[in-house]
Amino acid sequence: MALKYEVLKKYNKSRLGKLYTKHGVVNTPAFMPVGTCGTVKAMLPESVEATGAEILLGNTYHLMLRPGADLVAKMGGLHKFMNWNKPILTDSGGFQVMSLKGLRKITEEGVSFKSHIDGKQFFLTPEESISIQHKLDSNITMSLDECTPFPATYDEAKKSMQRSMRWAKRSFEAFQNRDGYGIFGIQQGSIFKDLRQESADCLKKINFDGYAIGGLAVGEGQDKMFEVLDYAPDMLPEDKPRYLMGVGKPDDIVGAVLRGVDMFDCVMPTRSGRTAQAFTEYGPINIRNARHREDPRPVEAGCDCPLCRNYTRAYIHHLQKCNEILAVMLLSWHNIRYYERLMQGIRKALAEDTFDEFVKEFYKKQQQGDIEEI
Amino acid sequence: MALKYEVLKKYNKSRLGKLYTKHGVVNTPAFMPVGTCGTVKAMLPESVEATGAEILLGNTYHLMLRPGADLVAKMGGLHKFMNWNKPILTDSGGFQVMSLKGLRKITEEGVSFKSHIDGKQFFLTPEESISIQHKLDSNITMSLDECTPFPATYDEAKKSMQRSMRWAKRSFEAFQNRDGYGIFGIQQGSIFKDLRQESADCLKKINFDGYAIGGLAVGEGQDKMFEVLDYAPDMLPEDKPRYLMGVGKPDDIVGAVLRGVDMFDCVMPTRSGRTAQAFTEYGPINIRNARHREDPRPVEAGCDCPLCRNYTRAYIHHLQKCNEILAVMLLSWHNIRYYERLMQGIRKALAEDTFDEFVKEFYKKQQQGDIEEI
Repeated sequence: MALKYEVLKKYNKSRLGKLYTKHGVVNTPAFMPVGTCGTVKAMLPESVEATGAEILLGNTYHLMLRPGADLVAKMGGLHKFMNWNKPILTDSGGFQVMSLKGLRKITEEGVSFKSHIDGKQFFLTPEESISIQHKLDSNITMSLDECTPFPATYDEAKKSMQRSMRWAKRSFEAFQNRDGYGIFGIQQGSIFKDLRQESADCLKKINFDGYAIGGLAVGEGQDKMFEVLDYAPDMLPEDKPRYLMGVGKPDDIVGAVLRGVDMFDCVMPTRSGRTAQAFTEYGPINIRNARHREDPRPVEAGCDCPLCRNYTRAYIHHLQKCNEILAVMLLSWHNIRYYERLMQGIRKALAEDTFDEFVKEFYKKQQQGDIEEI
Repeated sequence: MALKYEVLKKYNKSRLGKLYTKHGVVNTPAFMPVGTCGTVKAMLPESVEATGAEILLGNTYHLMLRPGADLVAKMGGLHKFMNWNKPILTDSGGFQVMSLKGLRKITEEGVSFKSHIDGKQFFLTPEESISIQHKLDSNITMSLDECTPFPATYDEAKKSMQRSMRWAKRSFEAFQNRDGYGIFGIQQGSIFKDLRQESADCLKKINFDGYAIGGLAVGEGQDKMFEVLDYAPDMLPEDKPRYLMGVGKPDDIVGAVLRGVDMFDCVMPTRSGRTAQAFTEYGPINIRNARHREDPRPVEAGCDCPLCRNYTRAYIHHLQKCNEILAVMLLSWHNIRYYERLMQGIRKALAEDTFDEFVKEFYKKQQQGDIEEI
């Protein structure tokens, strides 16, 4: 096995596990901060590590355009280039390329598209995506797929899923096996249960190292997403990690873990850090709000990140008003730490058989809202 | 004495010293990074401390407008507000207010001006400036003065300097003496030696804790600045620190230490960090330049900052091209570290009686230019 995965414990559908890679172990359920262009925005990699993050996501699309996979390979791979020595998962580039509406064309062979930066023409095939991810030295390579847009008719979803399955096979065949490295397949099928089943069956036959659930968090809303997650993870092998791509808000993650998902990635903690939003156990707050102007309390009492340990809400409010970069740095750090604390809490509760109480407490606090104004 | 200063050693006109404040010791010659709005831009305060910086400069003008001195006082003073527990020097606000050309009016009493942020009306007097700096809990308070513009006629320079001297007296009288805190007077007189002497005599009679040389680095050029520095520091007391305001480039600093200056502040390291410039012992480089695109070498070999220890020029070039905040963070850190290493080198050479060799080597390397393209 190129990547070893252990399910240490089950709690109803939820799973506590360990994923072993060449660059270290990832405890699951795991959240992966996103390092789009070879950097988790506004964070030093040692700070990302200090949050407890054990794996990052890198974006093949962005890196293939700038600085280019060959340059990254020449510099010793993405870990060395960006000074992150823990595991890296890369997406296939498909999701970004598909979003380039007017600029791309899909055929059975692959997707031709124009760079959003300089208009340069590219042609992304399953084989090319795998080759790029190989050059990046990604620990977890993702198959190239088409993320079926929402809404899609049954026929559209079926056609799209079936092409993704043909691409999954080509991706798998192009992947070069190495110890501590692996490749994941991606389940599609939109919100149609039989298509999800057909997709899962296809992927299982190929026998991937892990399985992603794709085509969710694309506008269908949490209710519909949870409906799909009520059955989709169960269709995937018990002994392999399950990764819900691009998800999500804290309560999306808790709900997905309840339904048997092991891995997550989302730009939300860093993007929110750039728009003055801080996640807290009592729900998100916007630090630009005037109520924080003279508030001497930390953003979140009990949080051990530098923002909460060393600064008042008044200070971070002030930094935000002045558009100071330090505000983005501290909020991004806090938000990633919030996500990693959430995952640590989930894993601890799973280990101690108290996940039901954890979930109840989580929702209760989230709905309570921010502490009283001073 | 409110602030104790020791000259440990002299080497021709250059001085090695120690300035004792309530928040710690400053070894001189010293460089002060600038924390305009209560943050050294794009730097955590612990990172600023890691560069070797022993004192910061805060801007009274910016802080009085946002968040306001009363709020900072309510939060326990500027050290606590911004999480910097070492010494802080604040300017008087005069320099920024004077630059608000159309928005300000100077009278004998003080300067009325409109905030550049919201147009709100303020009136800054020597007494008000000292009171604000007191509320900020600044270790070194600067007298309110008028930074005489360059060029100025002899009569303009004289009139301006004499008002600054009356304001210096009022500033001194408004200052509340406390152990470990002090107030500096500011010499003016433009490029006129007898006015510089008259100004120095005035200030010495008041008996400040330290003396700044103002009205330089305002467009007169390095040659003219050095001409003034050939005599201006000698007019000031031997046993008190001498601070050249707003200076400067690395070779400005070396030239000024040669002429007897002990303290410096400048936005250059952080501002350059936001415009892709890195200081090195072989002169400044612009990391956006295409020659760095595939360069696997550090920005400056031998530098111990995170940028130079952990990243290639190719990586920082890539971050810059992508407008990533991490580029600003790493370049700002490197540049401040460069300045602090420069000061450490100066102090070591003064301590070891090798300052002449140090200066010769410094200019030789600076003129050599960047390492060969790869």
